Formats: sequence, structure tokens, C-alpha cells
Amino acid sequence: MRTGLFLGRFQPFHNGHLEVIREIAGKVDKLVIGIGSAQDSHTLEDPFTAGERHLMISETLDELGIQNYFLIPIVDINRYSVWVSHVRSLVPPFQVIFTNNDLTARLFSEAGTEVIRPKLYSREVYSGRKVRGVILKGGEWRSLVPAGTARVIEAVDGVKRLRELAGDAE
Amino acid sequence: MRTGLFLGRFQPFHNGHLEVIREIAGKVDKLVIGIGSAQDSHTLEDPFTAGERHLMISETLDELGIQNYFLIPIVDINRYSVWVSHVRSLVPPFQVIFTNNDLTARLFSEAGTEVIRPKLYSREVYSGRKVRGVILKGGEWRSLVPAGTARVIEAVDGVKRLRELAGDAE
Amino acid sequence: MRTGLFLGRFQPFHNGHLEVIREIAGKVDKLVIGIGSAQDSHTLEDPFTAGERHLMISETLDELGIQNYFLIPIVDINRYSVWVSHVRSLVPPFQVIFTNNDLTARLFSEAGTEVIRPKLYSREVYSGRKVRGVILKGGEWRSLVPAGTARVIEAVDGVKRLRELAGDAE
Amino acid sequence: MRTGLFLGRFQPFHNGHLEVIREIAGKVDKLVIGIGSAQDSHTLEDPFTAGERHLMISETLDELGIQNYFLIPIVDINRYSVWVSHVRSLVPPFQVIFTNNDLTARLFSEAGTEVIRPKLYSREVYSGRKVRGVILKGGEWRSLVPAGTARVIEAVDGVKRLRELAGDAE
Amino acid sequence: MRTGLFLGRFQPFHNGHLEVIREIAGKVDKLVIGIGSAQDSHTLEDPFTAGERHLMISETLDELGIQNYFLIPIVDINRYSVWVSHVRSLVPPFQVIFTNNDLTARLFSEAGTEVIRPKLYSREVYSGRKVRGVILKGGEWRSLVPAGTARVIEAVDGVKRLRELAGDAE
Amino acid sequence: MRTGLFLGRFQPFHNGHLEVIREIAGKVDKLVIGIGSAQDSHTLEDPFTAGERHLMISETLDELGIQNYFLIPIVDINRYSVWVSHVRSLVPPFQVIFTNNDLTARLFSEAGTEVIRPKLYSREVYSGRKVRGVILKGGEWRSLVPAGTARVIEAVDGVKRLRELAGDAE
Repeated sequence: MRTGLFLGRFQPFHNGHLEVIREIAGKVDKLVIGIGSAQDSHTLEDPFTAGERHLMISETLDELGIQNYFLIPIVDINRYSVWVSHVRSLVPPFQVIFTNNDLTARLFSEAGTEVIRPKLYSREVYSGRKVRGVILKGGEWRSLVPAGTARVIEAVDGVKRLRELAGDAE
Repeated sequence: MRTGLFLGRFQPFHNGHLEVIREIAGKVDKLVIGIGSAQDSHTLEDPFTAGERHLMISETLDELGIQNYFLIPIVDINRYSVWVSHVRSLVPPFQVIFTNNDLTARLFSEAGTEVIRPKLYSREVYSGRKVRGVILKGGEWRSLVPAGTARVIEAVDGVKRLRELAGDAE
Repeated sequence: MRTGLFLGRFQPFHNGHLEVIREIAGKVDKLVIGIGSAQDSHTLEDPFTAGERHLMISETLDELGIQNYFLIPIVDINRYSVWVSHVRSLVPPFQVIFTNNDLTARLFSEAGTEVIRPKLYSREVYSGRKVRGVILKGGEWRSLVPAGTARVIEAVDGVKRLRELAGDAE
Repeated sequence: MRTGLFLGRFQPFHNGHLEVIREIAGKVDKLVIGIGSAQDSHTLEDPFTAGERHLMISETLDELGIQNYFLIPIVDINRYSVWVSHVRSLVPPFQVIFTNNDLTARLFSEAGTEVIRPKLYSREVYSGRKVRGVILKGGEWRSLVPAGTARVIEAVDGVKRLRELAGDAE
Repeated sequence: MRTGLFLGRFQPFHNGHLEVIREIAGKVDKLVIGIGSAQDSHTLEDPFTAGERHLMISETLDELGIQNYFLIPIVDINRYSVWVSHVRSLVPPFQVIFTNNDLTARLFSEAGTEVIRPKLYSREVYSGRKVRGVILKGGEWRSLVPAGTARVIEAVDGVKRLRELAGDAE
Repeated sequence: MRTGLFLGRFQPFHNGHLEVIREIAGKVDKLVIGIGSAQDSHTLEDPFTAGERHLMISETLDELGIQNYFLIPIVDINRYSVWVSHVRSLVPPFQVIFTNNDLTARLFSEAGTEVIRPKLYSREVYSGRKVRGVILKGGEWRSLVPAGTARVIEAVDGVKRLRELAGDAE
């Protein structure tokens, strides 16, 4: 069995993430989706809890009929030198990591894991930072995220949460 | 949608755990299974990593056709006063917790979560401590755990790992 | 008995803080004053230790005859999702929190605590950042803080400490 | 002004502690009472939160008209080599520590703080461990603690909490 | 250049440790001696600071003319799954580890480091626990440790420290 | 015996550091060189592991025949109020600290350690930040560091590591 790992903070889970998962889920038997910085929430950079992000992803993938995945929150360890070991201990064994991040690629590659670079989605259109910015400015953010994400953001009153966080940041 | 939480260390996942999951999985739409002390491994009390325990459970439930579950590692926070909030932030929202542990029941109940006590399996026959003891003494441990657990223990050379840990404990 | 909570970093304790305490101390039987980021000191943002801040406040309130308060240092926990539980475990039970911070208001309100917004003092005149700035520039900072604060800053050579911290920041 | 420090875990605050405070409060202008292991609660060794212990002590001392004290929770740092600095940073400056613990005496004495050994109360009669034991066995624990402590234990349903913790310890 | 690693807590550094170092220092160009649990001190199990243990070893090896070593304190990380990465990040690159501990051997061997088992010294005669026991009972401990260790223990009043720790342990 | 302490992050070890060590190594019997922020690596500010930095320094000093030094990694503790105690517990006893940092000087001086300010090397020419900048821009960095540092940077492919870190920082 071949298992792959895909890491993200998913603040929030957007169409760019979904595009990648659609591409890579078919290349492995099981796809482990790691929710990074799982301990963070209620900040401008990381507004949503790991549980909320879990729901954004699982509701979306379930609706699409994608089933061969594990969703695993990964709390930070804040030391790159032990980070690969930390990730490996929390998730089931995997043989390949999908990433376009150079540092992640290097750290896992040095540690003996195969690295595959997924096709790049347009980062000008889709990025967590951009989506959060559009939400803050009252723009049309629903078109940037899957319906599952939009439902969770609404259920937790996420737009208001982000605006209050922006107010306090000053 | 009704979601329930079931917590355990699953060192290892044994037939008693499985019995409970079979009982409760039908009572909720989604069952969140939290793998506690996720950061621990390679000790006599906690020999297996969170990833290994994840695999024991998911392989077993998949074979049995149980599909309505999330598996989520939960690292310890070592302070009971914030533990309920910690768990809630890491997992999707749940309405009920299944537990026979009095303290867990009290902490979640005080925090406003419904508590259901599952039927008790025989703790003389099934308990993590007992299974580890049988493994250590070279007894017939395979009958105490699902086939999925047995396969994982064998794949990671778990019997030898436990014995080495016992040798070092002195 | 009705107990209220008022939180601040008090770096240093200034006339704006005092104004609020005078307003709210009469509204409750006991006022718990939480000294936030208690573990921090000797930085430009957080120059004074929790013990020094404790003394600034207690000396001031004692001179004014305000007696119905508890002063409690609160170390950071750096996770908003467990922060309310963390604060609650460290201080005596309280029924109301006084705050004009939107996030604090939201977190405690979601957790079932009544929130009262005290009248706003002028943040252009009084704020910790402003007071630290005036001290650094050699301005007339004594008029911005109660006499108790001024005495503590002088006793610990606080003006020199802040300037050295500014020098090192580069 | 002369300030003294008295440290304890106060699990719970009992008559032996009170005896010592009565003896030493008159020897200093201000007595800092440090509530140790402030982060712990809901265990057999440390059943009560720092907030609950705060209330046991403040209610008792207030009824007795003892006013010259500060009550300060002190979270553990788990390294003796930095413990004195840690305590010093959290509490107002003090010149003397009251303790009969040899290690505490040595650590503070090496760090230049005067150590005074209070008269010993009978540890066979009064000790946190003994009081917890009497509570667990259903004995007459009220005579071992001040009325303020008894009221807090009852208000938080402390007897039941201890028994549930004992049940789970197995 | 071939570098080897030798790990110990060295509480205190005794003749058994020295025997091993004499045996293995000649087998490598550089010997990295890792002082484990570096953050611990002033407990019965770990009475001496990392700095004190550093001195015990360096004074002894300098007197013996052993020069090809590095001495490196290693603070605990309390998670075996990341421990090898943690050690590797703190010390210069090494190709071989000398150990008779089965778990250490397994963890490093799985991570691709060559393991050499040094000849065993008599653990009945030499062990940290035994040396601490002899010190506590007032026995003849000086014959169990190198002169460098004895000098450091005397300089820091280590015998009295251990006895005070034993008194408090009750 | 007189021992001195010199602290730095050494990211990387450059000619300015070496100049200072040459000046001060002759003023003490033993020089303790503390490698600060030892836990950090693989970031733009802290690209090299403690082990790599250890090697940069030891190879350089060995070639120069400087032998009276200890090299000790010091992990951060992130609280200035306990930092001096933290450092003291990890390194052998020292009587003097060499530093031009005002805060370090103040903290150690308040704690009773003699402070000596070494002659200043030119910070416009030599600083860790500057060296990292020159490496990133593809400039002539080898002339800014000792040969020992250059060899280590090359051995670990450090130029490429820094560039990848810069790419990811965006």
C-alpha cells in the first residue's frame, strides 16, 4: 500500500487546496492530510481551530466522494531539526510527501522520503492569506472556498470573529 | 447531525475497545475517536506511536465496514483544568462523550457535554496493561486484539520493542 | 457575593488603568485584577516583572483606600482556545469580566461569563505603549502614572532599564 | 518595609498552615503567601485549583482580621536550578523566607535570602496528605481545617471530587 | 574523521564511566560525550547540575591526558520518537554510538547510526544509583569515582546536598 | 582558576567572533563559549544547528592552537528573569562574563558576576546578519569567516539551505 502526506494550515481550506487534493488523492492508496499549527486559533493569521478546519475538509471531501484519506491535526514543535520525526510519529507510515515548499521538500528528502511536487494552482487567486483578506474587507469570499468550508465559517460566525481579531490587532 | 467522542490511549487497540466502538458507533452520525497521549511512544506504558495506533484502529474498522468515524491524535496538556477546552479545540464539535471514567465524565459534564456510559466490557480480560503484560511474557496475545492491531504490531516488530523496553526499565 | 475580573499587562500601571479600577471596584464585592503575561520582563514591550507590577498596583490602591481586590499574576498559555479555562483555574470564581477588548469579550461571553464594558479612558493620553515611549524619550512620564507606580519604577531603576533594552533592540 | 515569603501547595489549606501564618504575619510588614504548583488540580495529590485554594486562604484570613498579606499563585517550573529566580520574578521583593523545608532553605540561602524556620506544628496531626486521606475515608476532616477552607470544599463539591479521583487512580 | 557518541547522565561521573571512555576514546578521532538530562539538578536521582557534571568529567580527562573529546549538555525532550533528531541537532555529526542500552541502540540503529557495545564494567560495583546510595549512607564513596569527581562534589558541598534532598523526599 | 564566559548565537561563527576570542582567551584559565539559541536551525535568522556551529568553532580554534575553552550549547528559556540562573546551571562555574550587550551586562552584573567589555570589532564589517546577507546575495562571504566555518558551511550545503529558506520566507 502506498500512502502520501499533504500538509497545510488550511486557514481556511480553499479551492487551491482542493485542487491539489483532487490531483494527488488518485496517486496513492491513502492520503494523509496533516492540519498544521493545530494548536493555534483566534488570531488573524490562524483564525480557526483544528476541529473547525477538520470539518471544512471532511465535509468537502465527503461530498465529492473522496474517501481514501486520513485527517490528522499536527501541533507545532517549533524546531525544524526534529520536525520530520515529530510528523512521522503522529501519522501512519507514508512513503511520499506532496509539497511545493522548498524547505519541507529538503527536510523530508534529507530524511529519506520521496518528494513529489504537485502542479501549482494559482497563488494569486488562492491562498489562505488572500481569502482571509477578502473576508475582512467584506468581499466575495464564498467563491474562493468549497461549500463545506463556507458552511463551517458561517456556523462558527467566522466572519465576525475575523473582524474582531482585526480590531484587536491594533 | 449528532457527533460523539470516545477517548483512549489504545496501547494497543484491543477487543474491549472494539466492543465499545461497535456499540456506540451506531448511536451517532459521526464518532470521533481520540487517541490520547499521542506524543508518547517507546515506553513500557506507551509503546506505540500515535501513527501506529491510528493504523491499528483504521485497518480494523475498515475491515468491519465501520465508516462513520474520525481518528484524531490528542497530545497531552497535563492540566485537568484546561483539558476539556484543549480536546474541544482539536476535534470537530461533538454533543456527547462516551466514557466510563468518573473524572472524564465529571469534567465534560461540568462543561456542559452529555455523558453516556457504554456497557462495560470485562476489564479482567481486556485492558491495555493486560495485553502488554501478555506480550511481554510471551503469551497468546493475538486473541486479545483485532487482526488489524496484530498486523501493525508485527509490522513494527512490536513484541521485540516491548521486551527491549522492559529490559531497560530496570 | 459578586466578583469581577479585570485583566491587563500593566506595563506599567498607569492613570488610565486606575480610572477604570475606580469605576468598577464599586460595582462588585471583590475585584480580581489579573496581571497578564506574568512571565515576561526585561523586554521593550514588557519591561517590568510581575512582582514589580504587583507592587505598582497594590501600593497605589492601598493609598487610595481601595481594599476589595485580589491581585493575581497570570502566565501566558499562548493558545486562545484554552485561555478562558486557564484564567478560570488560576483565580477565584468570578461572575463578570470588565473589558473593552473585543476578543476577550467574545471568548468569555461564549464561555458564559457576563461582560461589562467600562467607560473608555482616553487611549491617546494613557496607554502602556505611550507611557513607555515617553519614558524612553526622557519626557514627563510621572504625570501619566500614579505615585505608587512612579516609586516602583524609580526603586528598580526602571528608566535606565528601558533605555538599555532600547539600545539592545537594534 | 520588611516583606516575608511563605510557600505551600495548600491542598487544602489546613490548621497547621494557619498556625504558621499567625506566628509569622506579625514578624513582617507584608507576608507574601505563594500558592505552589498553581497549574495543578483534579489529581489525588493536587485536587484543588489555584483559584479555589486562593479563596480558602483569603476567606480565612479575612475572618481573622489578618490583612497584611499578598496571595500569589506560582506555577511550577520543574527545574530547581532556576526556581529561586522564577519565584522572585513573580512576587514583590521580599527579604526573608519562612520555611522548614531543607532544600527550600538551602536554595534561597545560597541565593542570599534570609531564612527563618517557623515553629513546627505537629505534622502527625496536620498535613495536606493526612487531610486528603481523612476526606477520602469519610472521616471528620472539618476539624482539621479552618471554616473558610471547609466552605470552599463544600461549595465545589470537593469530597465527591476527591473520591472520583481515587476511583480513577486505579 | 570518525566521531563517536557516548551518552550518560553522570550523576555523578564514576569509575565505570571512566573505564568505558578509556576503552572507546582510542577507537575514534573525536569522542562526543553527551551529558543527558542536563536541565535536572537538586533531586535525589539527579543531584548535580550539568555544569558540575561537566567539570567532573573535564577535570578527570584532562588529568589523564585524554584530549580528543567534546562535552555537550543535552536537555531532555521527553519524547522518544524525536529523541534521535534532538540529539543529532545539538552535537557535531557522528558516525557511531557506543551504548549498552537496548533502547538507545535500537533507536539509533533504526535511524542509520552504527552501534558499538563497549565492554561492560561491573554494574554491581559502579552505577550512579549505587554511588549516590553510598554517599547517602556515609560510606566510602571516594574510591568509586575519579579524583576529579570527588573534588567537584566536595567543592559544591555535594554530600550535604544529597542528604538534604533525602530528608525532603519524605 | 579563573573562568570566563562568552556568549553568542554564532550564525555563523565569523571573524569578528574570532577576534574577540583571541583577545579574551588569554585573560582567563578557561573560556566557556556558550552557543545560544541552540535549539534553533533552518530559519533565515538561525540557519545552522548547534552541532554545526560547534564544529565551526572547534575546528577553527583547534587550528589556531587555542585549547583552553569549553563549547556548550545553551537552549533558550525565553524568560529574562530566570535566564542567568539557566545559563549558570548548564555551564561550569565562571567568575567573569565578556559582553558588549547592555542587557546581558546588566543581568549578570545584578546577579553578582564581573562584566568585562571586550574591545569592539567593526560591526559594519562583521555581524551574523551581514554574513548571512552576503551569502544570500551570492557575494564573497568566505573572507568574512574563518576557514573552519567555511568548510562546515560547504559540507552541509549551507549556501543552498539559506537560499531555500529565503525563498520560503515569502
